[in-house]
Amino acid sequence: MAGVLALSGGVGGAKLALGLDRILPAGALTVLCNTGDDFEHLGLSISPDIDTVLYTLAGIANPQTGWGRANETWTFMAALADLGGDTWFRLGDADLAVHIERTRRLAAGDALSVITEHLRSHLGIRSTVLPMSDQPVRTQVETSEGMLPFQQYFVKRQCEPAVRGFRFDGASEATPPPGLSQWLADTPLEAIIVCPSNPFISIDPILAVPGLRRMILDHSAPVIAVSPVIQGRAVKGPTAKMMSELGLAVTSTTVAAHYGELIDALVVDHSDDIEPIRNGPTVLRAATLMHSQKDKCDLAQTILTYARNLRTR
Amino acid sequence: MAGVLALSGGVGGAKLALGLDRILPAGALTVLCNTGDDFEHLGLSISPDIDTVLYTLAGIANPQTGWGRANETWTFMAALADLGGDTWFRLGDADLAVHIERTRRLAAGDALSVITEHLRSHLGIRSTVLPMSDQPVRTQVETSEGMLPFQQYFVKRQCEPAVRGFRFDGASEATPPPGLSQWLADTPLEAIIVCPSNPFISIDPILAVPGLRRMILDHSAPVIAVSPVIQGRAVKGPTAKMMSELGLAVTSTTVAAHYGELIDALVVDHSDDIEPIRNGPTVLRAATLMHSQKDKCDLAQTILTYARNLRTR
Repeated sequence: MAGVLALSGGVGGAKLALGLDRILPAGALTVLCNTGDDFEHLGLSISPDIDTVLYTLAGIANPQTGWGRANETWTFMAALADLGGDTWFRLGDADLAVHIERTRRLAAGDALSVITEHLRSHLGIRSTVLPMSDQPVRTQVETSEGMLPFQQYFVKRQCEPAVRGFRFDGASEATPPPGLSQWLADTPLEAIIVCPSNPFISIDPILAVPGLRRMILDHSAPVIAVSPVIQGRAVKGPTAKMMSELGLAVTSTTVAAHYGELIDALVVDHSDDIEPIRNGPTVLRAATLMHSQKDKCDLAQTILTYARNLRTR
Repeated sequence: MAGVLALSGGVGGAKLALGLDRILPAGALTVLCNTGDDFEHLGLSISPDIDTVLYTLAGIANPQTGWGRANETWTFMAALADLGGDTWFRLGDADLAVHIERTRRLAAGDALSVITEHLRSHLGIRSTVLPMSDQPVRTQVETSEGMLPFQQYFVKRQCEPAVRGFRFDGASEATPPPGLSQWLADTPLEAIIVCPSNPFISIDPILAVPGLRRMILDHSAPVIAVSPVIQGRAVKGPTAKMMSELGLAVTSTTVAAHYGELIDALVVDHSDDIEPIRNGPTVLRAATLMHSQKDKCDLAQTILTYARNLRTR
């Protein structure tokens, strides 16, 4: 069975991962998740992007917030506030079950990839979900107010401080998750897809894990990224704000240049006004705004069709 | 201001503590809680008796179960079950806030007494609540099926295995909570009250902390215990079953003999058929079944009145 590898951060990436999960045969898709957003909070080990992907693929994600679970209750958070606890990072009652299980098993010495596989299985997900590494990598955001741990910047400060750069602490000692290299060697891949996640804080941490960039570059499958930018705006999150603060044009051209030789093609929205890119990736057009589940499946299908054409050229 | 020291386990003890809290001036009552029931579960540090006392004094205890909080939700527990997690010990969503705060602060090096004081203050409780020690003491139950950690025996096995004895692991290295000795030295006490808790698993662990028994024996205040047994039955919990399994008569006389020289008086229910005790404590009569808040305040008042008479004899 041919496989598909998808690199994903949180919300935007998870949407495309859902489309791929639904149209591919069970087990064909492997989603490699950013863990640079992971952090320890209230003594719990929290992996926001893994959880968003798990919840999305399990069909239990909260469609309003883009994070957390549907049909969530907030009794814990209210009780914690009454005790004077830290409430800037919202943890729902059902969501807590994942954090407490993960924390308990990490403390017992289990690998993040093993724990993620356990969660995947119990949530009834057909695709494989992998952390980018079992070793902790922690994104630090260099801002106008100094270096901030990612969630301090992202959630507590709501991306307000201007961004100067990023550091992925721990990345140089990290290794790809066990089994990924073997799976890539054993599986004919239809495509490697870089989901429409933030290139700087969702995809770059993955590529910072030694060996992962090389694994992708060396693979014969076409590498197709989906631009998170449409007509000078990011679909969601701080991508556009970051690009401006970094002195970059908020365009899909910037996204293409950022990924450089890593990708063979960049999928941009039909309405996007990307400049032609000399010596750059092939530019492909699709409807990249995903609202409904059909939108997600359609985009996934379009990308896989493009991939087949790229491969047979 | 004269003070009252109450030794308490969970439910039964907390009821009398509530009565005392409501009739005494703010700050006069110190409740010294059993921590032999404490355990680590799902990576969380749980102190069931401290929490029952805190929730009861704060007026947020669950009146149906005798443990946990009123108006609780159970979303976490249901989600944990879906993940294949351990669900034999029920943790409500609001209850989790206390366990997560306690666990986080213990890991950060804070003492259990400091954390308990923080919780007390945020829950708006007027009385002082102290753990019997800041050092961990863990009750082990010697049973027909071997040694069981307390919660395994009590909750998981529902007190089913026959009891042969008890061991309070860690007790010999434990010390009384900071400040207790000073408070006892500085405060004229109206009484030291041993609440109607299980003598073997709620009060004995407290007395096993080196120095605490001596502190009580040496104090000039009258020591008054309330019998948890009425007419051959325990008001709640496994007290009667344990007494039988230990080869003891299920009577208040057994309770009096168990506490021995520690107590000056034993309060038994009006309906109890206690035998006269030669050289034993004074036997006092009261309505010891506490259903309503008035019952609790009335019993507390009766005990304090008895204490005044005992003191002036």
